[in-house]
Amino acid sequence: MSNANQPVWHEPGIARDQRWAHHHLHGATLWLTGLSGSGKSTIADAIARELLDASVLAYVLDADNVRHGLNANLGFSDADRSENVRRVGEVARLFADTGIVAIVPIISPFAADRARVRVAHAGSGLDFVEIHVGTSLAECERRDTKGLYAKVRAGEMHGLSGVDAPYEAPTAPDLVVAGDGESVTESVRRIIDHLRELGVLGAVGN
Amino acid sequence: MSNANQPVWHEPGIARDQRWAHHHLHGATLWLTGLSGSGKSTIADAIARELLDASVLAYVLDADNVRHGLNANLGFSDADRSENVRRVGEVARLFADTGIVAIVPIISPFAADRARVRVAHAGSGLDFVEIHVGTSLAECERRDTKGLYAKVRAGEMHGLSGVDAPYEAPTAPDLVVAGDGESVTESVRRIIDHLRELGVLGAVGN
Repeated sequence: MSNANQPVWHEPGIARDQRWAHHHLHGATLWLTGLSGSGKSTIADAIARELLDASVLAYVLDADNVRHGLNANLGFSDADRSENVRRVGEVARLFADTGIVAIVPIISPFAADRARVRVAHAGSGLDFVEIHVGTSLAECERRDTKGLYAKVRAGEMHGLSGVDAPYEAPTAPDLVVAGDGESVTESVRRIIDHLRELGVLGAVGN
Repeated sequence: MSNANQPVWHEPGIARDQRWAHHHLHGATLWLTGLSGSGKSTIADAIARELLDASVLAYVLDADNVRHGLNANLGFSDADRSENVRRVGEVARLFADTGIVAIVPIISPFAADRARVRVAHAGSGLDFVEIHVGTSLAECERRDTKGLYAKVRAGEMHGLSGVDAPYEAPTAPDLVVAGDGESVTESVRRIIDHLRELGVLGAVGN
Protein backbone atom coordinates (compact mmCIF):
# COMPACT_ATOMS: atom_id res chain seq x y z
CA MET A 1 0.00 0.00 0.00
CA SER A 2 1.56 3.26 -1.05
CA ASN A 3 2.15 6.32 1.07
CA ALA A 4 -0.08 9.34 0.49
CA ASN A 5 2.92 11.68 0.71
CA GLN A 6 4.75 10.44 -2.39
CA PRO A 7 6.02 13.69 -3.89
CA VAL A 8 4.53 14.88 -7.15
CA TRP A 9 6.56 17.46 -9.06
CA HIS A 10 4.86 20.84 -8.92
CA GLU A 11 5.71 23.10 -11.85
CA PRO A 12 6.69 26.50 -10.41
CA GLY A 13 4.17 29.27 -10.94
CA ILE A 14 7.00 31.65 -11.81
CA ALA A 15 9.47 30.24 -14.31
CA ARG A 16 13.18 30.69 -13.73
CA ASP A 17 13.59 32.78 -16.89
CA GLN A 18 10.88 35.16 -15.76
CA ARG A 19 12.41 35.62 -12.31
CA TRP A 20 15.92 36.09 -13.68
CA ALA A 21 14.79 38.61 -16.30
CA HIS A 22 12.67 40.60 -13.87
CA HIS A 23 15.38 40.88 -11.20
CA HIS A 24 18.38 40.95 -13.61
CA LEU A 25 19.77 37.74 -12.18
CA HIS A 26 21.93 34.94 -13.55
CA GLY A 27 22.42 32.06 -11.16
CA ALA A 28 25.36 29.68 -11.20
CA THR A 29 27.40 27.57 -8.83
CA LEU A 30 31.11 28.19 -8.30
CA TRP A 31 32.53 25.13 -6.65
CA LEU A 32 35.93 25.67 -5.00
CA THR A 33 37.59 22.35 -4.23
CA GLY A 34 41.03 21.99 -2.72
CA LEU A 35 43.06 20.96 0.30
CA SER A 36 42.58 22.41 3.75
CA GLY A 37 44.40 25.73 3.88
CA SER A 38 44.60 26.06 0.10
CA GLY A 39 42.78 29.40 0.18
CA LYS A 40 39.24 28.38 -0.79
CA SER A 41 37.45 30.58 1.75
CA THR A 42 39.72 33.56 1.11
CA ILE A 43 39.09 33.32 -2.61
CA ALA A 44 35.34 32.77 -2.01
CA ASP A 45 35.12 35.96 0.06
CA ALA A 46 37.10 37.91 -2.53
CA ILE A 47 34.80 36.72 -5.34
CA ALA A 48 31.77 37.69 -3.25
CA ARG A 49 33.25 41.17 -2.80
CA GLU A 50 33.87 41.58 -6.54
CA LEU A 51 30.35 40.41 -7.38
CA LEU A 52 28.82 42.74 -4.80
CA ASP A 53 30.71 45.64 -6.35
CA ALA A 54 29.32 44.54 -9.72
CA SER A 55 25.80 44.29 -8.19
CA VAL A 56 25.61 40.57 -8.94
CA LEU A 57 23.72 38.74 -6.20
CA ALA A 58 25.95 36.08 -4.66
CA TYR A 59 26.20 34.10 -1.44
CA VAL A 60 29.03 32.11 0.08
CA LEU A 61 27.74 28.68 1.08
CA ASP A 62 30.55 27.90 3.48
CA ALA A 63 30.72 24.16 4.03
CA ASP A 64 31.92 24.55 7.62
CA ASN A 65 29.05 26.91 8.42
CA VAL A 66 26.50 24.60 6.82
CA ARG A 67 27.73 21.90 9.19
CA HIS A 68 26.41 24.09 12.03
CA GLY A 69 22.90 23.95 10.52
CA LEU A 70 21.65 21.80 7.63
CA ASN A 71 24.47 19.28 8.02
CA ALA A 72 24.81 19.36 11.80
CA ASN A 73 23.63 15.74 11.90
CA LEU A 74 26.51 14.45 9.76
CA GLY A 75 29.85 13.13 10.93
CA PHE A 76 33.10 12.45 9.10
CA SER A 77 32.84 8.91 7.80
CA ASP A 78 33.28 8.60 4.03
CA ALA A 79 29.49 8.15 3.72
CA ASP A 80 28.76 11.24 5.79
CA ARG A 81 31.32 13.33 3.92
CA SER A 82 29.66 12.28 0.66
CA GLU A 83 26.23 13.16 2.01
CA ASN A 84 27.63 16.49 3.20
CA VAL A 85 28.80 17.28 -0.33
CA ARG A 86 25.55 16.06 -1.86
CA ARG A 87 23.40 18.28 0.36
CA VAL A 88 25.57 21.36 -0.13
CA GLY A 89 25.41 20.69 -3.87
CA GLU A 90 21.61 20.46 -3.79
CA VAL A 91 21.34 23.72 -1.85
CA ALA A 92 23.69 25.38 -4.34
CA ARG A 93 21.43 24.15 -7.14
CA LEU A 94 18.39 25.74 -5.47
CA PHE A 95 20.36 28.96 -5.04
CA ALA A 96 21.46 28.93 -8.67
CA ASP A 97 17.89 28.24 -9.80
CA THR A 98 16.74 31.26 -7.80
CA GLY A 99 19.28 33.36 -9.66
CA ILE A 100 22.07 33.62 -7.11
CA VAL A 101 25.73 32.93 -7.70
CA ALA A 102 26.38 30.27 -5.08
CA ILE A 103 30.06 30.33 -4.10
CA VAL A 104 30.95 27.04 -2.41
CA PRO A 105 34.31 26.59 -0.69
CA ILE A 106 34.41 22.91 0.22
CA ILE A 107 37.22 20.37 0.27
CA SER A 108 34.93 17.75 -1.38
CA PRO A 109 37.72 15.18 -1.65
CA PHE A 110 35.91 12.59 -3.77
CA ALA A 111 35.65 13.07 -7.54
CA ALA A 112 32.45 11.03 -7.73
CA ASP A 113 30.69 13.36 -5.28
CA ARG A 114 31.69 16.43 -7.27
CA ALA A 115 30.63 14.74 -10.51
CA ARG A 116 27.21 14.05 -9.02
CA VAL A 117 26.75 17.74 -8.20
CA ARG A 118 27.77 18.66 -11.73
CA VAL A 119 25.26 16.21 -13.19
CA ALA A 120 22.47 17.55 -10.97
CA HIS A 121 23.17 21.08 -12.18
CA ALA A 122 23.35 20.02 -15.82
CA GLY A 123 20.01 18.24 -15.44
CA SER A 124 18.53 21.55 -14.33
CA GLY A 125 20.21 23.52 -17.08
CA LEU A 126 22.38 25.39 -14.59
CA ASP A 127 26.04 26.36 -14.80
CA PHE A 128 28.37 24.46 -12.49
CA VAL A 129 31.90 25.83 -12.48
CA GLU A 130 34.41 23.51 -10.86
CA ILE A 131 37.43 25.47 -9.69
CA HIS A 132 40.43 23.62 -8.35
CA VAL A 133 42.19 25.73 -5.76
CA GLY A 134 45.42 24.02 -6.56
CA THR A 135 47.78 25.17 -3.83
CA SER A 136 50.19 22.28 -3.35
CA LEU A 137 50.15 20.08 -0.28
CA ALA A 138 53.67 21.26 0.55
CA GLU A 139 52.56 24.90 0.48
CA CYS A 140 49.37 24.21 2.48
CA GLU A 141 51.46 22.43 5.07
CA ARG A 142 54.05 25.22 5.13
CA ARG A 143 51.32 27.81 5.84
CA ASP A 144 49.32 25.52 8.17
CA THR A 145 47.02 28.43 9.05
CA LYS A 146 44.84 26.31 11.33
CA GLY A 147 47.62 24.13 12.72
CA LEU A 148 45.89 21.01 11.38
CA TYR A 149 48.83 19.60 9.43
CA ALA A 150 51.12 19.74 12.47
CA LYS A 151 48.51 18.02 14.63
CA VAL A 152 47.90 15.25 12.10
CA ARG A 153 51.64 14.69 11.59
CA ALA A 154 51.97 14.50 15.40
CA GLY A 155 49.18 11.91 15.58
CA GLU A 156 46.89 14.21 17.58
CA MET A 157 44.24 14.47 14.85
CA HIS A 158 43.23 12.40 11.88
CA GLY A 159 41.20 12.53 8.69
CA LEU A 160 42.98 15.39 6.89
CA SER A 161 42.44 15.17 3.13
CA GLY A 162 45.69 14.70 1.25
CA VAL A 163 47.58 13.54 4.34
CA ASP A 164 45.91 10.55 6.01
CA ALA A 165 42.65 10.74 4.05
CA PRO A 166 42.13 10.77 0.27
CA TYR A 167 41.98 13.90 -1.85
CA GLU A 168 41.13 13.19 -5.47
CA ALA A 169 42.20 16.29 -7.40
CA PRO A 170 39.96 17.21 -10.35
CA THR A 171 41.22 15.85 -13.65
CA ALA A 172 39.18 18.25 -15.80
CA PRO A 173 38.17 21.28 -13.75
CA ASP A 174 36.81 24.38 -15.44
CA LEU A 175 39.60 26.40 -13.88
CA VAL A 176 42.71 25.83 -11.78
CA VAL A 177 43.73 28.74 -9.60
CA ALA A 178 46.26 29.49 -6.88
CA GLY A 179 48.83 27.17 -8.41
CA ASP A 180 52.52 28.13 -8.55
CA GLY A 181 52.06 30.97 -6.10
CA GLU A 182 49.35 32.79 -8.06
CA SER A 183 48.00 35.67 -5.94
CA VAL A 184 44.40 35.79 -4.69
CA THR A 185 43.89 38.93 -6.76
CA GLU A 186 44.98 37.17 -9.94
CA SER A 187 42.93 34.03 -9.15
CA VAL A 188 39.83 36.14 -8.59
CA ARG A 189 40.43 38.12 -11.76
CA ARG A 190 40.53 34.92 -13.82
CA ILE A 191 37.39 33.56 -12.14
CA ILE A 192 35.51 36.81 -12.77
CA ASP A 193 36.64 36.74 -16.42
CA HIS A 194 35.24 33.21 -16.67
CA LEU A 195 31.92 34.34 -15.19
CA ARG A 196 31.78 37.17 -17.69
CA GLU A 197 32.20 34.65 -20.51
CA LEU A 198 29.31 32.63 -19.06
CA GLY A 199 27.11 35.73 -19.03
CA VAL A 200 26.83 35.85 -15.25
CA LEU A 201 28.01 39.45 -15.11
CA GLY A 202 26.40 40.47 -18.36
CA ALA A 203 22.94 40.05 -16.83
CA VAL A 204 23.32 43.33 -14.98
CA GLY A 205 25.10 45.14 -17.75
CA ASN A 206 28.62 45.03 -16.32
CA MET B 1 41.65 11.57 18.75
CA SER B 2 39.64 14.30 17.09
CA ASN B 3 38.81 14.64 13.44
CA ALA B 4 40.60 17.34 11.46
CA ASN B 5 37.36 18.33 9.73
CA GLN B 6 35.53 19.61 12.81
CA PRO B 7 33.79 22.69 11.47
CA VAL B 8 34.94 26.10 12.66
CA TRP B 9 32.50 28.94 12.11
CA HIS B 10 33.76 31.27 9.39
CA GLU B 11 32.48 34.84 9.71
CA PRO B 12 31.16 35.86 6.27
CA GLY B 13 33.31 38.39 4.43
CA ILE B 14 30.15 40.24 3.40
CA ALA B 15 27.74 40.88 6.25
CA ARG B 16 24.03 40.27 5.75
CA ASP B 17 23.20 43.95 6.30
CA GLN B 18 25.64 45.00 3.64
CA ARG B 19 24.26 42.54 1.09
CA TRP B 20 20.64 43.43 1.84
CA ALA B 21 21.31 47.17 1.65
CA HIS B 22 23.30 46.94 -1.57
CA HIS B 23 20.71 44.80 -3.40
CA HIS B 24 17.62 46.26 -1.69
CA LEU B 25 16.72 42.92 -0.17
CA HIS B 26 14.85 41.84 2.94
CA GLY B 27 14.85 38.11 3.52
CA ALA B 28 12.23 36.21 5.50
CA THR B 29 10.61 32.79 5.60
CA LEU B 30 6.89 32.35 4.98
CA TRP B 31 5.95 28.92 6.25
CA LEU B 32 2.61 27.63 4.96
CA THR B 33 1.42 24.69 7.01
CA GLY B 34 -1.87 22.90 6.46
CA LEU B 35 -3.55 19.71 5.34
CA SER B 36 -3.09 18.14 1.93
CA GLY B 37 -5.30 20.00 -0.52
CA SER B 38 -5.74 23.01 1.75
CA GLY B 39 -4.36 25.35 -0.90
CA LYS B 40 -0.77 25.85 0.32
CA SER B 41 0.86 25.62 -3.11
CA THR B 42 -1.78 27.78 -4.78
CA ILE B 43 -1.34 30.47 -2.17
CA ALA B 44 2.47 30.15 -2.37
CA ASP B 45 2.42 30.71 -6.12
CA ALA B 46 0.06 33.68 -5.75
CA ILE B 47 2.34 35.28 -3.13
CA ALA B 48 5.33 34.73 -5.41
CA ARG B 49 3.45 36.49 -8.21
CA GLU B 50 2.58 39.47 -6.00
CA LEU B 51 6.15 39.76 -4.77
CA LEU B 52 7.53 39.55 -8.30
CA ASP B 53 5.21 42.37 -9.33
CA ALA B 54 6.54 44.35 -6.34
CA SER B 55 10.14 43.48 -7.38
CA VAL B 56 10.74 41.63 -4.12
CA LEU B 57 13.00 38.62 -4.67
CA ALA B 58 11.20 35.45 -3.59
CA TYR B 59 11.40 31.72 -4.25
CA VAL B 60 8.93 28.93 -3.61
CA LEU B 61 10.70 26.11 -1.79
CA ASP B 62 8.14 23.45 -2.65
CA ALA B 63 8.47 20.56 -0.21
CA ASP B 64 7.44 18.00 -2.83
CA ASN B 65 10.03 19.32 -5.26
CA VAL B 66 12.76 19.31 -2.63
CA ARG B 67 12.00 15.62 -2.13
CA HIS B 68 13.21 15.11 -5.71
CA GLY B 69 16.61 16.59 -4.81
CA LEU B 70 17.95 17.48 -1.36
CA ASN B 71 15.49 15.19 0.42
CA ALA B 72 15.36 12.37 -2.13
CA ASN B 73 16.98 10.08 0.44
CA LEU B 74 14.16 10.46 2.97
CA GLY B 75 11.07 8.32 3.37
CA PHE B 76 7.84 8.84 5.27
CA SER B 77 8.49 7.53 8.76
CA ASP B 78 7.87 10.06 11.51
CA ALA B 79 11.64 10.47 11.86
CA ASP B 80 12.11 11.03 8.14
CA ARG B 81 9.22 13.49 7.95
CA SER B 82 10.80 15.43 10.82
CA GLU B 83 14.17 15.44 9.07
CA ASN B 84 12.43 16.54 5.87
CA VAL B 85 10.98 19.54 7.69
CA ARG B 86 14.27 20.29 9.43
CA ARG B 87 16.24 20.35 6.19
CA VAL B 88 13.69 22.48 4.35
CA GLY B 89 13.72 24.85 7.32
CA GLU B 90 17.51 25.10 7.23
CA VAL B 91 17.49 25.82 3.50
CA ALA B 92 14.81 28.48 4.04
CA ARG B 93 17.04 30.04 6.69
CA LEU B 94 19.95 30.21 4.23
CA PHE B 95 17.63 31.77 1.64
CA ALA B 96 16.33 34.31 4.16
CA ASP B 97 19.89 35.14 5.22
CA THR B 98 20.76 35.77 1.57
CA GLY B 99 17.88 38.23 1.39
CA ILE B 100 15.24 36.15 -0.35
CA VAL B 101 11.66 35.68 0.76
CA ALA B 102 11.49 31.89 1.04
CA ILE B 103 7.91 30.74 0.55
CA VAL B 104 7.53 27.23 1.92
CA PRO B 105 4.34 25.23 1.30
CA ILE B 106 4.76 22.12 3.45
CA ILE B 107 2.28 20.07 5.47
CA SER B 108 4.79 19.87 8.38
CA PRO B 109 2.33 18.05 10.64
CA PHE B 110 4.33 18.16 13.88
CA ALA B 111 4.31 21.31 16.01
CA ALA B 112 7.74 20.52 17.48
CA ASP B 113 9.32 20.44 14.01
CA ARG B 114 7.84 23.80 13.12
CA ALA B 115 8.93 25.25 16.47
CA ARG B 116 12.47 24.11 15.79
CA VAL B 117 12.52 25.97 12.48
CA ARG B 118 11.21 29.09 14.19
CA VAL B 119 13.92 28.88 16.85
CA ALA B 120 16.63 28.44 14.22
CA HIS B 121 15.43 31.58 12.43
CA ALA B 122 15.17 33.57 15.67
CA GLY B 123 18.72 32.52 16.54
CA SER B 124 19.83 34.05 13.25
CA GLY B 125 17.76 37.20 13.72
CA LEU B 126 15.54 36.29 10.77
CA ASP B 127 11.77 36.62 10.39
CA PHE B 128 9.84 33.36 10.40
CA VAL B 129 6.16 33.82 9.57
CA GLU B 130 4.06 30.78 10.37
CA ILE B 131 0.88 30.82 8.30
CA HIS B 132 -1.76 28.24 8.95
CA VAL B 133 -3.63 27.46 5.75
CA GLY B 134 -6.68 26.54 7.74
CA THR B 135 -9.01 24.96 5.19
CA SER B 136 -11.00 22.42 7.18
CA LEU B 137 -10.52 18.68 6.77
CA ALA B 138 -14.11 18.39 5.53
CA GLU B 139 -13.48 20.97 2.82
CA CYS B 140 -10.10 19.44 1.82
CA GLU B 141 -11.80 16.07 1.53
CA ARG B 142 -14.71 17.53 -0.45
CA ARG B 143 -12.29 19.05 -2.98
CA ASP B 144 -9.89 16.07 -2.94
CA THR B 145 -7.93 17.61 -5.82
CA LYS B 146 -5.38 14.80 -5.88
CA GLY B 147 -7.80 11.98 -5.02
CA LEU B 148 -5.77 11.15 -1.91
CA TYR B 149 -8.61 11.30 0.61
CA ALA B 150 -10.71 8.86 -1.38
CA LYS B 151 -7.81 6.44 -1.69
CA VAL B 152 -6.99 6.58 2.01
CA ARG B 153 -10.66 6.12 2.97
CA ALA B 154 -10.76 3.13 0.62
CA GLY B 155 -7.67 1.64 2.26
CA GLU B 156 -5.58 1.95 -0.90
CA MET B 157 -3.14 4.46 0.56
CA HIS B 158 -2.03 5.45 4.04
CA GLY B 159 -0.24 8.18 5.96
CA LEU B 160 -2.43 11.17 5.11
CA SER B 161 -2.09 13.89 7.73
CA GLY B 162 -5.36 14.57 9.51
CA VAL B 163 -6.91 11.27 8.42
CA ASP B 164 -4.80 8.29 9.46
CA ALA B 165 -1.69 10.28 10.44
CA PRO B 166 -1.37 13.18 12.89
CA TYR B 167 -1.74 16.82 11.97
CA GLU B 168 -1.03 19.16 14.84
CA ALA B 169 -2.59 22.50 13.89
CA PRO B 170 -0.63 25.57 15.03
CA THR B 171 -1.91 26.99 18.30
CA ALA B 172 -0.30 30.42 17.85
CA PRO B 173 0.44 31.00 14.16
CA ASP B 174 1.31 34.48 12.89
CA LEU B 175 -1.62 34.27 10.50
CA VAL B 176 -4.50 31.96 9.71
CA VAL B 177 -5.75 32.11 6.14
CA ALA B 178 -8.21 30.24 3.91
CA GLY B 179 -10.56 29.57 6.81
CA ASP B 180 -14.34 29.83 6.40
CA GLY B 181 -14.12 29.92 2.63
CA GLU B 182 -11.75 32.91 2.42
CA SER B 183 -10.65 33.37 -1.20
CA VAL B 184 -7.03 32.98 -2.33
CA THR B 185 -7.03 36.64 -3.31
CA GLU B 186 -8.08 37.72 0.16
CA SER B 187 -5.61 35.34 1.86
CA VAL B 188 -2.77 36.68 -0.26
CA ARG B 189 -3.79 40.28 0.41
CA ARG B 190 -3.61 39.69 4.17
CA ILE B 191 -0.24 37.95 3.89
CA ILE B 192 1.20 40.78 1.79
CA ASP B 193 -0.12 43.30 4.34
CA HIS B 194 1.68 41.36 7.05
CA LEU B 195 4.92 41.41 5.04
CA ARG B 196 4.56 45.15 4.59
CA GLU B 197 4.32 45.54 8.37
CA LEU B 198 7.51 43.47 8.74
CA GLY B 199 9.31 45.78 6.31
CA VAL B 200 9.79 43.08 3.67
CA LEU B 201 8.17 45.19 0.96
CA GLY B 202 9.46 48.49 2.30
CA ALA B 203 13.00 47.49 1.38
CA VAL B 204 12.30 48.23 -2.28
CA GLY B 205 10.14 51.27 -1.65
CA ASN B 206 6.74 49.66 -2.33
